Amino acid sequence: MKCMKYGVVGFSGRMGKEIINVFTDAGHELVLKSDALGTERGGRPDVILDFSSSAALPVTIALCEGYAAPLIAGTTALGDADLTALKTLSEKVAVVQSFNFATGVTLLRMIMRDYAPLLESWDLEIEETHHNKKKDAPSGTAILLRDATGRKNAPTHSMRIGGVPGDHSLRFGNEGEILTFAHRALSRGVFAIGALSAAAFAVEAKPGFYTFEDVLNKGRKV
Amino acid sequence: MKCMKYGVVGFSGRMGKEIINVFTDAGHELVLKSDALGTERGGRPDVILDFSSSAALPVTIALCEGYAAPLIAGTTALGDADLTALKTLSEKVAVVQSFNFATGVTLLRMIMRDYAPLLESWDLEIEETHHNKKKDAPSGTAILLRDATGRKNAPTHSMRIGGVPGDHSLRFGNEGEILTFAHRALSRGVFAIGALSAAAFAVEAKPGFYTFEDVLNKGRKV
Amino acid sequence: MKCMKYGVVGFSGRMGKEIINVFTDAGHELVLKSDALGTERGGRPDVILDFSSSAALPVTIALCEGYAAPLIAGTTALGDADLTALKTLSEKVAVVQSFNFATGVTLLRMIMRDYAPLLESWDLEIEETHHNKKKDAPSGTAILLRDATGRKNAPTHSMRIGGVPGDHSLRFGNEGEILTFAHRALSRGVFAIGALSAAAFAVEAKPGFYTFEDVLNKGRKV
Amino acid sequence: MKCMKYGVVGFSGRMGKEIINVFTDAGHELVLKSDALGTERGGRPDVILDFSSSAALPVTIALCEGYAAPLIAGTTALGDADLTALKTLSEKVAVVQSFNFATGVTLLRMIMRDYAPLLESWDLEIEETHHNKKKDAPSGTAILLRDATGRKNAPTHSMRIGGVPGDHSLRFGNEGEILTFAHRALSRGVFAIGALSAAAFAVEAKPGFYTFEDVLNKGRKV
Repeated sequence: MKCMKYGVVGFSGRMGKEIINVFTDAGHELVLKSDALGTERGGRPDVILDFSSSAALPVTIALCEGYAAPLIAGTTALGDADLTALKTLSEKVAVVQSFNFATGVTLLRMIMRDYAPLLESWDLEIEETHHNKKKDAPSGTAILLRDATGRKNAPTHSMRIGGVPGDHSLRFGNEGEILTFAHRALSRGVFAIGALSAAAFAVEAKPGFYTFEDVLNKGRKV
Repeated sequence: MKCMKYGVVGFSGRMGKEIINVFTDAGHELVLKSDALGTERGGRPDVILDFSSSAALPVTIALCEGYAAPLIAGTTALGDADLTALKTLSEKVAVVQSFNFATGVTLLRMIMRDYAPLLESWDLEIEETHHNKKKDAPSGTAILLRDATGRKNAPTHSMRIGGVPGDHSLRFGNEGEILTFAHRALSRGVFAIGALSAAAFAVEAKPGFYTFEDVLNKGRKV
Repeated sequence: MKCMKYGVVGFSGRMGKEIINVFTDAGHELVLKSDALGTERGGRPDVILDFSSSAALPVTIALCEGYAAPLIAGTTALGDADLTALKTLSEKVAVVQSFNFATGVTLLRMIMRDYAPLLESWDLEIEETHHNKKKDAPSGTAILLRDATGRKNAPTHSMRIGGVPGDHSLRFGNEGEILTFAHRALSRGVFAIGALSAAAFAVEAKPGFYTFEDVLNKGRKV
Repeated sequence: MKCMKYGVVGFSGRMGKEIINVFTDAGHELVLKSDALGTERGGRPDVILDFSSSAALPVTIALCEGYAAPLIAGTTALGDADLTALKTLSEKVAVVQSFNFATGVTLLRMIMRDYAPLLESWDLEIEETHHNKKKDAPSGTAILLRDATGRKNAPTHSMRIGGVPGDHSLRFGNEGEILTFAHRALSRGVFAIGALSAAAFAVEAKPGFYTFEDVLNKGRKV
């Protein structure tokens, strides 16, 4: 991967810091950073990342337009108006938008969508385990994976243990066999690795509105 | 193990059949069988097994006394009067009594009793998975293992999948580590293998009232 | 599923017996049985199953032609000439041919073929566990799954424990995530359940040469 | 736990930094730090920790004697002369010495030592998974756990996947059951949490030479 110059909106938040860690480790150069207090510019970014809040979106869009820079949009609480604004932006630059940038989770969602229909007659049990500070249950990822199976009422078990970053599993079984699909996060910063793949994809892509699935499908042999 | 001559009370029930299967495979000889319809005698038994119901107990006790044969008592629904009768019998012959003859489950229970106190400050999540015909939840074994940890309120998750004979796990975790203890039955006839160990123990033992734990502890180097 | 009349070539072998067990439990009617000693006919079969040996193939093909009955061909040691003969037969009747009729294993192979290319940069470790009587290692299924990933040199670990019918797992991981795909057989007769799906498919299918994957894909919404 | 004043020998190394992180998070006060370049004193320590190298031991022992402070000795490459020196020190202060301060691993070792003899007739397979930068195989912890079972030739499988901090499992099985004992580290700094338990133990203990097992057994109800 060649060195990218990148900008981060929300650089001082938890997500912004993780992104900067992962991008710095991979040899990329931070040339622009922005948060609620203002924007520091140190060069023209090849790509801009925003995993902050919908409040920052107008600044983010202005920056992308100003630099003709593609955008990786990972903010989780976007409304319809926000998505419309991003789609308008995507007429000028590549925009990769997703509510989940964990590669493994996204692949598992794709596999469930493609293969759960062939497992329709099998029993299904879903489990997720997270650290004991997590308040909501089941996790958003568990719901997302369950929805992908098309079985919205599948029993779902939430466990809270110590410092577990996040485990998810879907087990299908019939009289003679069990098939298990499991994902385990090794750290809470997995999404930043996905953001890096997305950035590498976006700097090469034509203007357009892309999902994280589009980024992953790039890996397929044609 | 030398060849044992054995008798089975409740020989025509599901448990009786499993016992006969496992004992026959191991080369032992069935010389006495009894059920609600009567008793067939074909020789003097070295040991008698009863995994049937408390209704059969008077016959069982009379047979053990008559032959001075030790007893493996695996009936699950025994009342206080039944246990008193077995204790009286144990003054004359060895009696091994347990509500669970699965070796692995019993070992896990012993380990939980010995080690869960050292894991008191860790989170605990208990899981059990059984075939989708099982009606009660959580399983009796899950409750037995949970009780052994001394944490009667530990969260316990019951899953029902296809033809699973029976999985149980206890996961303890803190900020930095997870310890998992898991048992998996490979068939529904596990208890009969345990009954075989108990029988081999009983034919060598002095009169007395023994638990299945006593049978397993025989394996320790002194 | 409506009641099928079926025939079994190799009815007296281990595979034949498992098929008859599973088909009988599901309410189908055995009307023809054949082995090296001869053929007993009790009616016109809707479908014929042969999981025996290539030596039986000429008889099997003659029976299918005689009754215009579709064939489920699960014999594992077929040569090129055998496959050619089956293809010729498939001009007249539906033939479902596979070397593995375990549904879960076949689905896992399909998923690996479709998705392992997107996991190319991840580490991969493969494991299989079988009962301690199994002589060959790694198992044929482990090799089949490994081949489906396109990574013929992926490290593969074989474990031999007690009476395990057969577990397989593929674990992919990178710096931040682990994805696990696992299959567990609950009994050694899984293939017969797959043979039943294949038979239900074949009695409805036009003449042609089908794989077990074609049978499973029938489950997709169109 | 009341606030401890503590000293760290080897404070500038990787282990020293982890210890300071964990102790600081738990509210304890660093009052003395030492490394190859010298010693900075900022108060009288209640306990001193040394997880550095045997070269530092003379300084460490002098500090403990000077302050009459107990010692947590976690250096892994100690020779016989080093251990003798620590035993002499333990006549004056409490010394907790161990080659492994991971609580879960130590408990698992204790359980294996106590219970593996009852599983002697079961098959055993051992597995460990670590990050792909790890060079040695099997891991030291796998060897330590295997030795605790008394079965030095038990098959042991090493897997190297992405960023896994460290998983270990021991699976015992017979014809009808599998018992699995598994440990999973959630981060590479687990030992520092154990060092904290050891320090809390040592500040209350009489002079003497203690193992990490003595620290853990403190948790037992008497």
